[in-house]
Amino acid sequence: MKKANKKVNAAIIIIGNEILSGRTQDVNVVSISNWLNELGVKLEEVRVIPDMENSIIRTINDVRKKFMYVFTTGGIGPTHDDITSRSVAKAFNLSYGYHKQAYEILEKYYRPENFNEGRKKMAMLPDKALLIFNPSSGAPGFIVENVYCLPGVPSILKSMLGGLNNKIKGGKKILSKTISLITVESEIASSLEKVQKEFKDVEIGSYPFFRQGKIGVSIVIRSTEEALISDCYKNIENFIKKKKINQIEI
Amino acid sequence: MKKANKKVNAAIIIIGNEILSGRTQDVNVVSISNWLNELGVKLEEVRVIPDMENSIIRTINDVRKKFMYVFTTGGIGPTHDDITSRSVAKAFNLSYGYHKQAYEILEKYYRPENFNEGRKKMAMLPDKALLIFNPSSGAPGFIVENVYCLPGVPSILKSMLGGLNNKIKGGKKILSKTISLITVESEIASSLEKVQKEFKDVEIGSYPFFRQGKIGVSIVIRSTEEALISDCYKNIENFIKKKKINQIEI
Repeated sequence: MKKANKKVNAAIIIIGNEILSGRTQDVNVVSISNWLNELGVKLEEVRVIPDMENSIIRTINDVRKKFMYVFTTGGIGPTHDDITSRSVAKAFNLSYGYHKQAYEILEKYYRPENFNEGRKKMAMLPDKALLIFNPSSGAPGFIVENVYCLPGVPSILKSMLGGLNNKIKGGKKILSKTISLITVESEIASSLEKVQKEFKDVEIGSYPFFRQGKIGVSIVIRSTEEALISDCYKNIENFIKKKKINQIEI
Repeated sequence: MKKANKKVNAAIIIIGNEILSGRTQDVNVVSISNWLNELGVKLEEVRVIPDMENSIIRTINDVRKKFMYVFTTGGIGPTHDDITSRSVAKAFNLSYGYHKQAYEILEKYYRPENFNEGRKKMAMLPDKALLIFNPSSGAPGFIVENVYCLPGVPSILKSMLGGLNNKIKGGKKILSKTISLITVESEIASSLEKVQKEFKDVEIGSYPFFRQGKIGVSIVIRSTEEALISDCYKNIENFIKKKKINQIEI
């Protein structure tokens, strides 16, 4: 069984019809998850929901009670389908309107003749939201309690994560070690299960791969404890040697 | 506001620590969603959850009541972390054990000396599950009521979708039209909002892009009605011409 790092966990809510319709491949989960790993925060759930106020309100109010940190992506731009800020305000029963600091940032960012209604809309936020600095394109993200609202455009989102490092109180960093083998899962299943039973506090995953014409299995060991990973790795190495299975770098 | 095609909808549950950890980029949502679009089924939610029995049971029992079709991906292989079949059985209060038909399929697929415990485990399913044929690698998927359980390996999953076509009763096919413009969202936001208000039964999405050194916006119009898309498109074309915004093929 896999044991969750319950202490510091997070969920992502992806707000976007374009992901649900299959038009756009999400890549933000990988970016946020890798960043959270570094901070010692375990991503435990992702939800992808449509750009609909009811869905957003319901999902935010469900998820924010279950996880320490919640990150939303998408829906904070200037168009009619960008309704995250308004929906978050409603989820928290906060008023929604021009946010002084966000307005000033955008006012400085754009020339006066270009600071149109759409751009002004990006300064409309839940009352008393804290801002997340956007080094790429001006319009800030924002924080209400444990909910962190980020844009959907991957490059802009990535540029904003670093600025949040000091706002996230992570736990121990989640470490991992991968062993890739030229074998099939069924050949190692019972041995691997024995190791998992012995190392209950380590998460052992088994993932088949097909790459460069080769079929194999990657075993991933995850834990916050370096020593546990090392011991677990030795146990896996033992049965691999006995079974004469070859390792491969992928 | 966007109107959902409430009649025939679906959700996906991605079961996989490797997606949550950021190690693996999910690509199955795009495959399933595009296939559902063709069948006239609207994907309305995705959840990514860990390989933990409690999470799987809770999520399946929550989601299967809300959506007409539920697809799970991952966790039906031979290793200790493959617990989807057992968890689905528990979610539906069904017994879990060797499934005669699945056992026979796997028995034929492998040579007797290779039909080991791990491979036999893939024949352990909820009682009375219907099988989903796997043309790639033998081990079948399965169906319990409105829950369709598929593997996580993208190529195998894709090869199994076609065989489900006659099991899914879709609605009208969801059509879409995309217009890509050399502009920024804030330039078109208010005009686009007016069109959306006029065409309430059409879903209009606005998505910025940065490609080949060009900044632009793709407007996506979605509806089951060709005529509505066409009328909506003309309205958008009108304001584009007035604003002298150029279209681009991307």
